[in-house]
Amino acid sequence: MAGFFDRFSRLKSENDTGFSNTASGRFLNSNGYPNVKMAGLNPLEKYSWYHVMINLNSFLFILLLIVSYIVINIFFAFIYYLIGIDHLTGIDKSNVINEFTDVFFFSSQTFTTVGYGRIAPVGFLASLVATFEAFLGLLSFAIATGLFYGRFSRPRAFLKFSQNALISPYQDGKALMFRLAPFKNNLLTDAVVILNVAISNKEADSQTEFFTIEAEINKINSLVLNWTIVHKIDENSPFFGNTQEIFQTAEVEIFVQIRAFDEGFASTVVQRTSYTSEEIIFDAAFLPMFKPSYNHETTILNLDKINDFKKVNLN
Amino acid sequence: MAGFFDRFSRLKSENDTGFSNTASGRFLNSNGYPNVKMAGLNPLEKYSWYHVMINLNSFLFILLLIVSYIVINIFFAFIYYLIGIDHLTGIDKSNVINEFTDVFFFSSQTFTTVGYGRIAPVGFLASLVATFEAFLGLLSFAIATGLFYGRFSRPRAFLKFSQNALISPYQDGKALMFRLAPFKNNLLTDAVVILNVAISNKEADSQTEFFTIEAEINKINSLVLNWTIVHKIDENSPFFGNTQEIFQTAEVEIFVQIRAFDEGFASTVVQRTSYTSEEIIFDAAFLPMFKPSYNHETTILNLDKINDFKKVNLN
Amino acid sequence: MAGFFDRFSRLKSENDTGFSNTASGRFLNSNGYPNVKMAGLNPLEKYSWYHVMINLNSFLFILLLIVSYIVINIFFAFIYYLIGIDHLTGIDKSNVINEFTDVFFFSSQTFTTVGYGRIAPVGFLASLVATFEAFLGLLSFAIATGLFYGRFSRPRAFLKFSQNALISPYQDGKALMFRLAPFKNNLLTDAVVILNVAISNKEADSQTEFFTIEAEINKINSLVLNWTIVHKIDENSPFFGNTQEIFQTAEVEIFVQIRAFDEGFASTVVQRTSYTSEEIIFDAAFLPMFKPSYNHETTILNLDKINDFKKVNLN
Amino acid sequence: MAGFFDRFSRLKSENDTGFSNTASGRFLNSNGYPNVKMAGLNPLEKYSWYHVMINLNSFLFILLLIVSYIVINIFFAFIYYLIGIDHLTGIDKSNVINEFTDVFFFSSQTFTTVGYGRIAPVGFLASLVATFEAFLGLLSFAIATGLFYGRFSRPRAFLKFSQNALISPYQDGKALMFRLAPFKNNLLTDAVVILNVAISNKEADSQTEFFTIEAEINKINSLVLNWTIVHKIDENSPFFGNTQEIFQTAEVEIFVQIRAFDEGFASTVVQRTSYTSEEIIFDAAFLPMFKPSYNHETTILNLDKINDFKKVNLN
Repeated sequence: MAGFFDRFSRLKSENDTGFSNTASGRFLNSNGYPNVKMAGLNPLEKYSWYHVMINLNSFLFILLLIVSYIVINIFFAFIYYLIGIDHLTGIDKSNVINEFTDVFFFSSQTFTTVGYGRIAPVGFLASLVATFEAFLGLLSFAIATGLFYGRFSRPRAFLKFSQNALISPYQDGKALMFRLAPFKNNLLTDAVVILNVAISNKEADSQTEFFTIEAEINKINSLVLNWTIVHKIDENSPFFGNTQEIFQTAEVEIFVQIRAFDEGFASTVVQRTSYTSEEIIFDAAFLPMFKPSYNHETTILNLDKINDFKKVNLN
Repeated sequence: MAGFFDRFSRLKSENDTGFSNTASGRFLNSNGYPNVKMAGLNPLEKYSWYHVMINLNSFLFILLLIVSYIVINIFFAFIYYLIGIDHLTGIDKSNVINEFTDVFFFSSQTFTTVGYGRIAPVGFLASLVATFEAFLGLLSFAIATGLFYGRFSRPRAFLKFSQNALISPYQDGKALMFRLAPFKNNLLTDAVVILNVAISNKEADSQTEFFTIEAEINKINSLVLNWTIVHKIDENSPFFGNTQEIFQTAEVEIFVQIRAFDEGFASTVVQRTSYTSEEIIFDAAFLPMFKPSYNHETTILNLDKINDFKKVNLN
Repeated sequence: MAGFFDRFSRLKSENDTGFSNTASGRFLNSNGYPNVKMAGLNPLEKYSWYHVMINLNSFLFILLLIVSYIVINIFFAFIYYLIGIDHLTGIDKSNVINEFTDVFFFSSQTFTTVGYGRIAPVGFLASLVATFEAFLGLLSFAIATGLFYGRFSRPRAFLKFSQNALISPYQDGKALMFRLAPFKNNLLTDAVVILNVAISNKEADSQTEFFTIEAEINKINSLVLNWTIVHKIDENSPFFGNTQEIFQTAEVEIFVQIRAFDEGFASTVVQRTSYTSEEIIFDAAFLPMFKPSYNHETTILNLDKINDFKKVNLN
Repeated sequence: MAGFFDRFSRLKSENDTGFSNTASGRFLNSNGYPNVKMAGLNPLEKYSWYHVMINLNSFLFILLLIVSYIVINIFFAFIYYLIGIDHLTGIDKSNVINEFTDVFFFSSQTFTTVGYGRIAPVGFLASLVATFEAFLGLLSFAIATGLFYGRFSRPRAFLKFSQNALISPYQDGKALMFRLAPFKNNLLTDAVVILNVAISNKEADSQTEFFTIEAEINKINSLVLNWTIVHKIDENSPFFGNTQEIFQTAEVEIFVQIRAFDEGFASTVVQRTSYTSEEIIFDAAFLPMFKPSYNHETTILNLDKINDFKKVNLN
């Protein structure tokens, strides 16, 4: 198997993908994030908490907000309790549990700045703590509501990609094709696609070559319907020759990056995905995924058909 | 009518508009959004609520805010009512309606964090619900006020387009012309226009060709007065030859996209429109839409004259 | 004076400035905004209130906020007064003025969501109005504080320009020069300058030619010190020949636009200015505006010297 | 030492760095900000407070918020105290200190809009001041929380650079190399590097030449692992010839600017650094800083190894 990469010698291997030919495992995870772990940093330095919070699952994010809210109020309730419940007016002193829950509710009324006043601080210490709890509440809710709205309004591309990439007949030969479509009520303009490929020998260790591959159309004005991205397999393609053998004997990963402008967000948005050897279907062609409406006045784009294809005979 | 498109054979048909030659109906609606419906998705996935809210009519948006506010407070009022009005101090118990409205107002005082305290929770359950209502209120108002300010400050181009595009005399021949002007107190710089055309045979079904067409000037430094965009109809234009016949026998749609930088928003802004065959006026020329002020110290731009034209004789 | 513009016949007149050769008065006002008035619109359509508020003088902006706050509270005070002060607890009823001021203060405590509760609504109508006043207060403060912070954090270039442009000796000939410098603790990178010129005959009416002129260096990596922008007056310049006569017999306006990236704002910023014939100084050269610090460890940039020049002899 | 710069005569000296060849001291400070002081401005004009606040150390920023909060409340406490504590209900009048602290706490409850109401204003003057304190509180917290969240969410590149730049063997000759790596959970795409060099004679005063130098790869698609930036020292490099002598006899500073797009922030981010003569290591090569994980499923990037190099023999 020596000389495996000789077949690519006619092509200039690219070094500008940002990936290394000595890296291990899949390059991009299915979520489009790189398969790399950082080490050698103290944990505080390691994370951009903004990115953690923005990328967190919605359920976990809400849960985190609620848990933080409860924990902070329990913390302040303890402080008020230590100061003494005599420094708060209106506390129900019938039993310890009522005392503590009332102090907890006073804390929450201070932290949210509701401040009914049925329970209110008297005396220096309790008032001082309440003064800072209200201050802390405003700053904390600045982060919480900022992230809450930030997650809601964050510029995203909202694209669906076909699960598979196909090797389809194209012009006189073959082409690698996959497709993508917008799936929400946003409008992307000036969309650009960038394609990179990593090819590594399945048996040999740590040998990877990178190529930039061309799409027949790499820029469209408005991303209105689905966009089938077509990479013609000609002599400039690393897949030229016995395409099926290449995909079977080598570990191939095709990196896709879409960049476009969204008017609603008034911002550039980016989305990435990758296809590996296992996700390539040979001798297949995509089926149409849109059709005229009943009255021929509009076009209906069926997003559940994005991966629909039929087998075709490629000679 | 076979060979209808043969007349365009000298031109390279474009595939990079993002529209398909098998789509149905007008391509862009008059509001600049594509005439496409999405299908095959569950309703939750289908919408970017941010885009829905940002694009909603102002009256409906305000109405939605008010209705949501009332519904949420009625919901919480029911919960407090179920818990028992004995768990709220200061409720007017003279009759059931007064009871319920007082509970409703307590809810609103909690949700907005006003918290007068005339009505205040006592006991565990009511206090707990109030604790979470205040929390929910802060998060809800984060979205409501974020969208309210976001709609107010959203980068937009604020351009008016002439209702019609004209076929006017230009140099030794003809040109397609339309014009646009800024109509607000913002200033757009580095404005760029992109023009695409879809031409389809009126009688045959589902045949559309796309072309990118050139404007004589496609970039200006500052969009200060009106900008008349001129597409010269020469041998590189799909309208070359018997222009009037082309527009009459074919369904033509001209897509216009303007992109510029707005300093106030410190952001790129985009606006789109389209002209169909019916909106083309032949043998006409735009009339000036600005004039010097009385004292010749400034220029007055009459935006109500943006579509004013006169008929001219074109041989 | 016929043939005044013949001298420019060797140069291609530009049409991409966005200005018209039939416009009146100075093109750009000294603040960099165009000297154009919009007409033919209803007043509601005419303004982008965001731009009005963002560009408003700070004193007027604060004044507007305060006045709006007072007016809204007076308005609501009247409503509560009409409903009847019996529907508010804790009102000082000693005299009419005390009554009204207490109602006013109740309104402000509701609008800001302070809600002390010393004065609180009882009964349906007053509670209902208070419910909506708190709601309106939250939305209003969203706009007020959004604009307040938006003005504070708005991306701006913070550049000072020399008051005059000079005709200075340069290489073997002459050059038009002016300079600019950052004056705050921000850092601009990838700064680009665009220069346009409008030349019109002083005596003839409504004749203006536009030219794009070149700067010797039109892009710098970091705008750290002052940047002297140099337009060499050679055969490609509209000022070639008897430069002084051109500026004296014609109305000249030089438009300057600087575009750069600011890291603090993480945004592109733009600033514009213009120089007219009256602001051109002949046979002069700028004096240095920076010098080493006493210990030669840093450089001191004297922004008050930005327009310092000396007269030189140009033959 | 006359003719020191003659060695560079084959290269075009660049003037577009934005630095001046008569400036003093290091050009960029280690934090990437220029080593320049502004003078000749009144202090109010001199600072962009947004930039000051955004760049302030976190500890100082929080301290400033807390101190401002206390100072403002003491200020308002004095005003209420001057108006008379009889105009506030619920004040503990047992002694002067209790009086003043209660007034202080009333102020803080107003400024944060908590408004318990245990202490509440009665009478015109105290109510009026409270009305404006609540208003001021909302505006102040708009700035405080805006900055607090703005600092948290500000687009930054989060890159670590190697402390040293190396002169390493490269192809048949030598190259200047340094490396950088992302160190947080963000993802940078379309990263671009710009390199500039300032070379000045150590002995002569105030003579500096600027050059733009080329990197072998100046753009990568995704900044996933470390990026070693390689400047080949060939005849187009200012370091060609006796490289070591150049660095020893001249004061060299290499300016590095990285620009990339971050999806989480949906914004362009920029980071800068510089290397001076003292930070150049001769005859050395970087050691690998990433390795496969134990199970070869992912790649581990060791950020503490970013400056690890070994000495090599360069002939």
